[in-house]
Amino acid sequence: MRASRYLIATLKETPADAEIISHQLMLRAGMIRKLAAGLYTWLPLGLRVLRKVERIVREEMDRSGAQEVLMPAVQPAELWQESGRWQQYGGELLRMNDRHGRDFCFGPTHEEVITDMVRNELKSYKDLPANFYQIQTKFRDERRPRFGVMRAREFIMKDAYSFNLDQASLDETYQVMHRTYCSIFDRLGLDYRAVEADSGAIGGSSSHEFHVLAASGEDEIAFSTGGQYAANIEKAEAVAPAGERPAPAETMAEVDTPDQHTIANLARFLNIDASHTIKTLIVKGAADEDGNQGLVALILRGDHELNEIKAENLPDVAEPLTFASEEEIKASAGCGIGSIGPVGLSIPLIVDRSAAHMADFVCGANKDDVHLTGVNWERDVPLGRVEDIRNIVEGDPSPAGDGHLEIKRGIEVGHIFKLGNKYSQAMNATVLDENGKSAILEMGCYGIGVSRIVAAAIEQNHDDRGIIWPMAIAPFEVAVVTLNAHKSPTVMEAAEKLYDQLRQAGLDVLLDDRNERPGVKFADMELIGIPHRVVISDRGLQAGTLEYKGRSDADRQDIPTADALPFILKATGRPA
Amino acid sequence: MRASRYLIATLKETPADAEIISHQLMLRAGMIRKLAAGLYTWLPLGLRVLRKVERIVREEMDRSGAQEVLMPAVQPAELWQESGRWQQYGGELLRMNDRHGRDFCFGPTHEEVITDMVRNELKSYKDLPANFYQIQTKFRDERRPRFGVMRAREFIMKDAYSFNLDQASLDETYQVMHRTYCSIFDRLGLDYRAVEADSGAIGGSSSHEFHVLAASGEDEIAFSTGGQYAANIEKAEAVAPAGERPAPAETMAEVDTPDQHTIANLARFLNIDASHTIKTLIVKGAADEDGNQGLVALILRGDHELNEIKAENLPDVAEPLTFASEEEIKASAGCGIGSIGPVGLSIPLIVDRSAAHMADFVCGANKDDVHLTGVNWERDVPLGRVEDIRNIVEGDPSPAGDGHLEIKRGIEVGHIFKLGNKYSQAMNATVLDENGKSAILEMGCYGIGVSRIVAAAIEQNHDDRGIIWPMAIAPFEVAVVTLNAHKSPTVMEAAEKLYDQLRQAGLDVLLDDRNERPGVKFADMELIGIPHRVVISDRGLQAGTLEYKGRSDADRQDIPTADALPFILKATGRPA
Repeated sequence: MRASRYLIATLKETPADAEIISHQLMLRAGMIRKLAAGLYTWLPLGLRVLRKVERIVREEMDRSGAQEVLMPAVQPAELWQESGRWQQYGGELLRMNDRHGRDFCFGPTHEEVITDMVRNELKSYKDLPANFYQIQTKFRDERRPRFGVMRAREFIMKDAYSFNLDQASLDETYQVMHRTYCSIFDRLGLDYRAVEADSGAIGGSSSHEFHVLAASGEDEIAFSTGGQYAANIEKAEAVAPAGERPAPAETMAEVDTPDQHTIANLARFLNIDASHTIKTLIVKGAADEDGNQGLVALILRGDHELNEIKAENLPDVAEPLTFASEEEIKASAGCGIGSIGPVGLSIPLIVDRSAAHMADFVCGANKDDVHLTGVNWERDVPLGRVEDIRNIVEGDPSPAGDGHLEIKRGIEVGHIFKLGNKYSQAMNATVLDENGKSAILEMGCYGIGVSRIVAAAIEQNHDDRGIIWPMAIAPFEVAVVTLNAHKSPTVMEAAEKLYDQLRQAGLDVLLDDRNERPGVKFADMELIGIPHRVVISDRGLQAGTLEYKGRSDADRQDIPTADALPFILKATGRPA
Repeated sequence: MRASRYLIATLKETPADAEIISHQLMLRAGMIRKLAAGLYTWLPLGLRVLRKVERIVREEMDRSGAQEVLMPAVQPAELWQESGRWQQYGGELLRMNDRHGRDFCFGPTHEEVITDMVRNELKSYKDLPANFYQIQTKFRDERRPRFGVMRAREFIMKDAYSFNLDQASLDETYQVMHRTYCSIFDRLGLDYRAVEADSGAIGGSSSHEFHVLAASGEDEIAFSTGGQYAANIEKAEAVAPAGERPAPAETMAEVDTPDQHTIANLARFLNIDASHTIKTLIVKGAADEDGNQGLVALILRGDHELNEIKAENLPDVAEPLTFASEEEIKASAGCGIGSIGPVGLSIPLIVDRSAAHMADFVCGANKDDVHLTGVNWERDVPLGRVEDIRNIVEGDPSPAGDGHLEIKRGIEVGHIFKLGNKYSQAMNATVLDENGKSAILEMGCYGIGVSRIVAAAIEQNHDDRGIIWPMAIAPFEVAVVTLNAHKSPTVMEAAEKLYDQLRQAGLDVLLDDRNERPGVKFADMELIGIPHRVVISDRGLQAGTLEYKGRSDADRQDIPTADALPFILKATGRPA
């Protein structure tokens, strides 16, 4: 492609309403333009990236045996009424009426449509397993669309839906999809993690998220140094410390702690580490048969944080998690919020696994401005129930036993999920099984945010000069930049020759033949993020060289003109 | 692809609501399924065809220098209010409100969005010419959607919009698009015609339609035997007959014609050809300055039909064309509708070119049940104004002078159109010209009905057994059909081998390995329309042969197994 005949719509200024780096860079590099809130036009340069992502997703889905279909964007309300979602779905569902007043929506997802298709087309267990996918435009009417294509209202998804006769077959398809997603993100050249999204269920996880790692990611992921374990931090298991609880060494004693109402203050006041203290949180218990709600004490090591999702999933704890008021604490513990402790407390204790492993610890004495030191479980206070109720921290042992946990931030770009028979039951999607009996289908669904991947790739790969595309999805792989070509036929001739040679070698090449200053051209190519850059100038040609620079290289290097082609082929990983 | 793992959803019965053959065959072959009125899911087999059409369109558009973009389907009302179309567009515009109550539509076309993009991104004449296209899902809320994807509500269009500094540059881009469309339809393997869609404008045609020829087409197209001229019959010019009008030979005489009120009856009664008669139609004239409307007589040769569009485009004729009532005719001509004629008529005459060339003709006498014979222009009645007001008929001379006209039916699948500054003016889309002055952009728009092409290809290419795909868009190019393979490992082995060889040669192959009766498999492959079929059976293998049949061939032929690969490569036009 010749830049002089191509829309290079780079911007010098960062648009004011772009909050995150990918949004800023996609606007500045001329990849997208905003049409309205959450609606973006893909300019030629951005669309090239999007199409490359699409192609990789399509090729790997095809390889997995999934069959591509294309369902309408506009869906009739009747199917959503059948599944019950017409009522359940909130303001994110863009509803509309056609000219005859009938209800439709712009599909944010296609479970109903595909289930309707399958119940009509698949008749027998012999037609199974089947997995149908599409790459298609969807709409989710976000209340506050932002972050460019990262959270747009209109976006492009790959959504797949599998249909299986039984759970075992669904498990197999699920594993195939897991492997396919890994192949896709491998080929995209992104650093990603498959993350358990539902660790609690019996029979193993039934949902995985795929995250592109990026410092700016909205989600926190814990993963093990051994590489076997990864989970969203909200769901990552904090395992019990190894070994036995140490034996008591100190005797319990009261200590005055005037005005020390936080763990941090207390530790500083007593000159101890926060990990030797305990914090006690009083929350509402689950209602009993008569609807009465007592209180429950949640006990954590002083330096740990409560994981509210884990806590409220416990049967004894009210859902949603509700902290006791100051009055309730005063009535129950006899003191203010900064001096509570387990010793002598008359409500049930739920003790975190790490707190349960402590000896000779410090805790509130249930008297204002007084704490206890040298406290030990069982000797001084019954242990109560031990549970996992905290957030993991970096350095925790991996639940899979493979090293310890690290925490990284990620952007969710894929999700695979076992739906079971939620939709097939509601919509009566059955086939005849081997015995000629009607069997409700088992379903899985598998999504990839195709347009979101473009933004996520940028969040992961950029510097202060612009985007650094992975080769697989770069809009162009090589930029051939001419300097003062409009004055020098020699430069233009050499550039055209190299351009043709590289294209014949199968590379996507942008010939920057624009009549612009060298600085403008260099800045544009770096902003756009083209992985390899070759500069052709009169001075270089006179010296018999071209200048090469990889997008992430610190330095430029001069290459003899005669070696240019093999050098670039090698740099781009093409066979010479 | 193995048919055993692929959705072959053929139907034996023709669905009742499918009126045209392409709709019937797409349903029967398992290409599409109806979701709701005018909304179709593309099943795997149909989508393969759609994607092949898309790819050819994309490749040729890219080759033309057009740049691909992707605009949102959902468009804000504000832009349509700027162009004035929010009010003008009728019920076909699917309007909706987002969760904040703002007005949007599902775009049936994208002039406003692209003009908005261009007015922001293109600043100077140096950025021109530019041509942007997309292949995208559109919605037109047809009152009565029918004919499957031929006239669906949700459909896929290729729409392109060019921006030029002046008319001359627009002309160039228009010619490039005309050639590009020819390349596209050539590659698709369809019999098509580029047809003048607006023959009247000074400066040559500013609009062409591209029609796929098919007996079932909704449009009639006139084209010349010499190949230079083609026009929608509504717009095709009926040229004046060659030579001078013959001199009068008969004298004018009255003849009684009791109850002969139609041309056909009159000609039979007088035993003459209808082409020797004249018919006179009385219509309302254009209103004068005071708003008064007189009557006008339109005179045609008896065997010709009035072209209402041509007539109402005349300045003297009321638009829309309005026929005079019986009372008005009686008052003006003094007789009933079957006896009107030009002689002695007191209203202006507009005489068709062919009628003006007649001598010694028969016409009404303006007395009930009386006609005149031997009538001649000027001698018996002043000629009045001569205009082209009739439909052409087969055999008419070509307006381009290259032979005579034939009429075929066609399906409109493309349209190229010079928009001029309609949108750029309304939306103030300007660039700075060479002199630094602001210039309103000239625009062209260029559409192709991508999903409609699939149906049009079938209307053109089918027989009583099913579809006959052109190679370029066949879902699979070759079907390798096994007979009783579940009982014969030899058959399966030979089939697998050929399947691999053909795929390695770059062919799209469907291996029909289903455990079905031979008749079912043959019927399915013919219904689906795969161009080449190879049958592998035990009997054949024992004789050392495979059976080959082209989809349009009358007979099957046996091919020695050893020659099968080169034979098929040759049949499919691949290099051996």
